[in-house]
Amino acid sequence: MVRTILVLGAGKSTSYLIDYLLKKSDEENLRLTIGDLHPENIPWDFSSHPNCKVIPLDICNEEDRKNAISEATIVVSMLPPKLHIKIAEDCIHFEKHLVTASYISKEIEALDQDVKKKGLVFMNEIGLDPGIDHMSAMEVIDRIRSKGGKMLLFESFTGGLVAPESDTNLWHYKFTWNPRNVVLAGQGGAAKFIQEGSYKYIPYQKLFRRTEFLDIEGYGTFEAYANRDSLKYTKAYGLEDALTLFRGTMRRVGFSKAWQMFIMLGMTDDSYTIENSEGMSYREFVNLFLPYSPTDSVELKLRHYLKIDQDDIRWGKLVELNLFDGTKKIPLKNATPAQMLQYILEDSWTLQEDEKDMIVMYHKFGFELEGKKRQIDANMVVIGENRRYTAMAKTVGLPVAIATIQILNGNITTPGVQIPISSEVYGPILSELKSQDIVFNEFEVPYLGYNPDSVGG
Amino acid sequence: MVRTILVLGAGKSTSYLIDYLLKKSDEENLRLTIGDLHPENIPWDFSSHPNCKVIPLDICNEEDRKNAISEATIVVSMLPPKLHIKIAEDCIHFEKHLVTASYISKEIEALDQDVKKKGLVFMNEIGLDPGIDHMSAMEVIDRIRSKGGKMLLFESFTGGLVAPESDTNLWHYKFTWNPRNVVLAGQGGAAKFIQEGSYKYIPYQKLFRRTEFLDIEGYGTFEAYANRDSLKYTKAYGLEDALTLFRGTMRRVGFSKAWQMFIMLGMTDDSYTIENSEGMSYREFVNLFLPYSPTDSVELKLRHYLKIDQDDIRWGKLVELNLFDGTKKIPLKNATPAQMLQYILEDSWTLQEDEKDMIVMYHKFGFELEGKKRQIDANMVVIGENRRYTAMAKTVGLPVAIATIQILNGNITTPGVQIPISSEVYGPILSELKSQDIVFNEFEVPYLGYNPDSVGG
Repeated sequence: MVRTILVLGAGKSTSYLIDYLLKKSDEENLRLTIGDLHPENIPWDFSSHPNCKVIPLDICNEEDRKNAISEATIVVSMLPPKLHIKIAEDCIHFEKHLVTASYISKEIEALDQDVKKKGLVFMNEIGLDPGIDHMSAMEVIDRIRSKGGKMLLFESFTGGLVAPESDTNLWHYKFTWNPRNVVLAGQGGAAKFIQEGSYKYIPYQKLFRRTEFLDIEGYGTFEAYANRDSLKYTKAYGLEDALTLFRGTMRRVGFSKAWQMFIMLGMTDDSYTIENSEGMSYREFVNLFLPYSPTDSVELKLRHYLKIDQDDIRWGKLVELNLFDGTKKIPLKNATPAQMLQYILEDSWTLQEDEKDMIVMYHKFGFELEGKKRQIDANMVVIGENRRYTAMAKTVGLPVAIATIQILNGNITTPGVQIPISSEVYGPILSELKSQDIVFNEFEVPYLGYNPDSVGG
Repeated sequence: MVRTILVLGAGKSTSYLIDYLLKKSDEENLRLTIGDLHPENIPWDFSSHPNCKVIPLDICNEEDRKNAISEATIVVSMLPPKLHIKIAEDCIHFEKHLVTASYISKEIEALDQDVKKKGLVFMNEIGLDPGIDHMSAMEVIDRIRSKGGKMLLFESFTGGLVAPESDTNLWHYKFTWNPRNVVLAGQGGAAKFIQEGSYKYIPYQKLFRRTEFLDIEGYGTFEAYANRDSLKYTKAYGLEDALTLFRGTMRRVGFSKAWQMFIMLGMTDDSYTIENSEGMSYREFVNLFLPYSPTDSVELKLRHYLKIDQDDIRWGKLVELNLFDGTKKIPLKNATPAQMLQYILEDSWTLQEDEKDMIVMYHKFGFELEGKKRQIDANMVVIGENRRYTAMAKTVGLPVAIATIQILNGNITTPGVQIPISSEVYGPILSELKSQDIVFNEFEVPYLGYNPDSVGG
């Protein structure tokens, strides 16, 4: 029996997703329908595939949306999260399974009873982060528990970075995902976590100054700053009794200390607009945040303001971004400082056609087993192929694609609005991801319960 | 003819206001009605005065409110700003003048046409700041203009501090007004101002590190940090063409650099609550914001985190507040960090019965006259008598009281919702304030257009 998969939204993150489903289409008897507002942007090798149909689709057009959904066997939504709810309601009405890589919203959560009544699977948070983090963490946690171990510590870190071979700047960073989210990262409230039973809080103005280091063999040292809410999955993972819970974002060493300069200058502020932003030079933008002087240079004022010594590597990072260039102009009208900074960063940090990105993930599992405290660390590195086939698209898209086929084949059957934390779900998916070179390396380390080097500064 | 003044709200700031009106009551034929939710708190020397009547009044009780207002000749509202609107509407209905020390809200502003139609005076922002700042500034600005001068620069600073004779702590600060506003000062957006024609922005995380110094003869040196919106009165003062516009808050030197510690720790955050705040010791509170360590002391962790050298005076300021005391407890349930910090500060910074507060104000007026750039500085110092008769109550209450009598006597007649910036208003009030020892000292200084020492750090 032919099964039709409706993929809604064919943006940048869907290259591997569609590629994988089309490659499996003959063997698995799949037909793919891709619904997108701009079908002309879908690569020809996809749209011309015999098992693929591309349809122009405005998700807000009710008739078209309902038609497309009613004709599918299962629906995959890669659209922005706020558009999921209408799709989900139609999926319940037409009795279709649904797969998304997005966080479960309150609206989607509220559909749980209806979804269960119809025996449907609504699988969410099955991309990279959230997604692979859930599955890889629960696989180890379940294993520790099955041996009688008691969880003491869980720390989890993810980073979307640039591959070593394409790492050509002093920040060791390029945008591989939504640049706006990178510029605004950490805003909107203090980061909260638990260390050895004590609640800890870090305000935005210190967030990037309290990092911890992580080593990955063959890839060197990384740093991580705290995510806003490390306690988000405490209940889902059954970690209510754990003494340490921490989630963070990974960068190359030195990124955070340099990023702190933008925070202290006020350049990441998105709460007000600069009236005369259009046509402002990068140099003028910097000077907005420095005291007035009729004679002193922008350079010296900034060095003094942020206490940057003559031989501080942070200085080179600013120069590299052309921040003191008086000829480069920002074309944005009435822009916020954050939007202007984003423009300047994109000017330097955009991945080139043939450049490769890199995804890193690092988990720490502390536990007590037979009276002894132990720790397992696990990490994953995925390198992209180029700007179309990124490691980001691979790690987001493949779990979605694999879950879709697993649901179609009746290997994932428990109904309801869910995330991939049960072995029924993560078992076969992690196994298939391994065959696609998405692999975790595990090793035992001494249990400390905290990071002795992480005293901040 | 006897005139009845209805004073709504008899809080801490009204001692001088009521005292002044009662002292003038025989000579000016005044009767005072004080309406308050808690009339029992009104001092006996007020309530027993023959020209004073005290009535219990819940401003939300429509009938009582309308009765009280209908019987008055003029209404003075010292209630919280959000309560003004109902009073203002009743004042229009019963055709009564209204005086408040509060900022004009949009709702009050919208009544302007109705107020004008009835020929009423609604005088607002006639306390200290806003109030005396408007009047004293406009008096000098109008004088400069009357001589043909063109305004280039206006800077204005106010501080509510402790008098030198009651200055007993290392911070040189005690609360003389709403402590919550002091703890939250500077939050909610970047400070914006103009220096020599250039827009400048300071984010919260640098606000207290970019102060400028101000000297007042006989009182030493003060510092000032920028208010959020220095451009607020540009239009009202007619300063659209000025090159420099800056408004700030004054503190004793060193306060801001020490306050920055609280900001960087995250203790001024009011956006989330600490679940187990009740019964937490001051020391535990500090440790919430420091990295976990099984051995290192809270003291050393904090010194390292904020880079406080052994001989840094900021350390003594923290110790003086008992921040490392493990026995002193915070009794607040589910409190925000800002609320907890406020509790700790009030423990040390509460003005004692016989202690004196101090109000300082400092204006700078830069202008061009006959082809030459010149500058006039003007400052005012007012010392309180004790905790009841504070300089704060004096400088807020006396302008309100004087304006009320001026309106009753027909010396202020221009109708409408207004602030005290016309000479009709500020002339007689400033003159009467002078007789009450609220005096500005003026002197000429060289015009610079900026503060050469204010490079931040």
